[in-house]
Amino acid sequence: MNLNLPETLKWEDHKLHLLDQRVLPHQQTYLTIETMQDAWQAINTLAVRGAPAIGVAAGFALTQAMFSNPNPSQQELERIAKYLKSARPTAVNLSWALDRVVKSWAESPSTETLEREALAIYHEDLAICQNIGKHGADLIQPNQGVLTHCNAGSLAVSRLGTATAPMYEQHNRGIPFRVYADETRPLYQGARLTAWELDQAGIDVTLICDNMAATTMASGKIDLALVGTDRVTRNGDVINKIGTLNVAILCKHYGIPFYVACPSSTYDRQTSSGQQVPIEQRDKQEVLGDHAATVKVLNPAFDITPASLVTGIITEQGITSAENIDVFLAP
Amino acid sequence: MNLNLPETLKWEDHKLHLLDQRVLPHQQTYLTIETMQDAWQAINTLAVRGAPAIGVAAGFALTQAMFSNPNPSQQELERIAKYLKSARPTAVNLSWALDRVVKSWAESPSTETLEREALAIYHEDLAICQNIGKHGADLIQPNQGVLTHCNAGSLAVSRLGTATAPMYEQHNRGIPFRVYADETRPLYQGARLTAWELDQAGIDVTLICDNMAATTMASGKIDLALVGTDRVTRNGDVINKIGTLNVAILCKHYGIPFYVACPSSTYDRQTSSGQQVPIEQRDKQEVLGDHAATVKVLNPAFDITPASLVTGIITEQGITSAENIDVFLAP
Repeated sequence: MNLNLPETLKWEDHKLHLLDQRVLPHQQTYLTIETMQDAWQAINTLAVRGAPAIGVAAGFALTQAMFSNPNPSQQELERIAKYLKSARPTAVNLSWALDRVVKSWAESPSTETLEREALAIYHEDLAICQNIGKHGADLIQPNQGVLTHCNAGSLAVSRLGTATAPMYEQHNRGIPFRVYADETRPLYQGARLTAWELDQAGIDVTLICDNMAATTMASGKIDLALVGTDRVTRNGDVINKIGTLNVAILCKHYGIPFYVACPSSTYDRQTSSGQQVPIEQRDKQEVLGDHAATVKVLNPAFDITPASLVTGIITEQGITSAENIDVFLAP
Repeated sequence: MNLNLPETLKWEDHKLHLLDQRVLPHQQTYLTIETMQDAWQAINTLAVRGAPAIGVAAGFALTQAMFSNPNPSQQELERIAKYLKSARPTAVNLSWALDRVVKSWAESPSTETLEREALAIYHEDLAICQNIGKHGADLIQPNQGVLTHCNAGSLAVSRLGTATAPMYEQHNRGIPFRVYADETRPLYQGARLTAWELDQAGIDVTLICDNMAATTMASGKIDLALVGTDRVTRNGDVINKIGTLNVAILCKHYGIPFYVACPSSTYDRQTSSGQQVPIEQRDKQEVLGDHAATVKVLNPAFDITPASLVTGIITEQGITSAENIDVFLAP
């Protein structure tokens, strides 16, 4: 594809470099990860974000830590993996990628094995996004309007993104359509990242505040909602960025299809429903900004969209109903 | 009542002073209105805001302009009224209050008449809020959670506010309850004004981002939504701050009562439905802030909540269904 897309991360000479998403779109600078504490900070403070990108980054970070470790051992590997997992407990890809890298060591204990595994995760991720794009593209018909929330784009994942992959695929085929990007308070991933990356790629994108979604739907501008996810549980519940549940309910009210792009690595077979997932409460300052400092604040990072509100889940293997995801992705 | 409430406006020596709501809660400063251009600017840039407060302020501003006019005449009066109306075309109270002041001149053409009429509007507004508070108070049961959007509080109107009047009334009766205030992007009236004024008054208030309303409802924290309005049309449609429609749809989904506080002056008998109301599109910069400057933006100031989503409308004369408002408020 001939698309102008940013490189979210680079792996060079056993060192991880991350496009610092906290300062986009004003600055396009790369953070060089030197220590595992740097990696923990980068994941925790959202310098790198988006479920798949976190997984890929963590795989490389763990590999890097072992390359620079004087006594690389199974024990050290597990200790560092556990430490890195604590940076974003809700992100299932983080555990998934780290466990994969740890497991590869058991088969052949060398840092080269770890690197091969981390690279494999990365390359699989590229292919997964391409396939999500192919399976989801036809959901977007010519001249339709697509609402998206947060950033499940190129910046969240290798190259094509997840929720954005069908958009990039259709755009590449020359199909015209419009995207409405929720700004996504409190961290503005929609305003800072999605609007920016779609605009860079030449897609017709309009930024709205989260609370404008209903009136935009009421006016007939939205034909489809397409979002990413941090975790889908066995019953098909979707854990995603705070505000996703609002979008799903509004879609139900207006009869608009609500689709979730979900690589199979983001599917969590171990957890029976969204109610079991711990929801990260973030710092109140993110919401307060410089407003009245004394009031109480809720700042859940995610919400749980029940499977019943989800029209379909787009995986790299095809589209399934949310309720049927466990059978569809049977191992 | 023994409540700590801010004074939104002051009328002293034929001069209007407005608490500058653009810089709250950091600064509590009063703008002194010297010219009708000052008044237009203050209304247009939301230094004074909230349907009733705009009406009261405009009544005083028109009076002040005529006091300082070398040749006060019917023609001048109508010219200035027309000019002031153009500052916020969606606010029905603005026209309503200005028309009332203009009409008083016809009966007795003197600046003193205008002042009496402007003061009457102000004092009626105080009484209206008290009565809305009395009629609406029992909607809030002990230990319940109330969601509100934007600011229809003390700052939007004389003293008790509209949507907040039932809250202040119950608080004054010693009934404990919690309020969740939507921050209300893009101008943060909830974060800057509602959270601040309720906190000052000693009410238990928690700030949330607009997109957190669904998950807050899903967790059982919300028993009632209570909002103000800029205009209610003859069929019961509610025009209010952008995001109100989202709240109403979420309430319907979760079976939560959705009430609108509406002084009879905010009821617009002349307009048959919300679809007839021009929706002010505001500057894209309000949404963009310092994010990617090149993308397109939608910034409607209001949305239209259809009567079918409204559980009831609280007026100073009692509570009515939205559909029945025309009969209920029959002149």
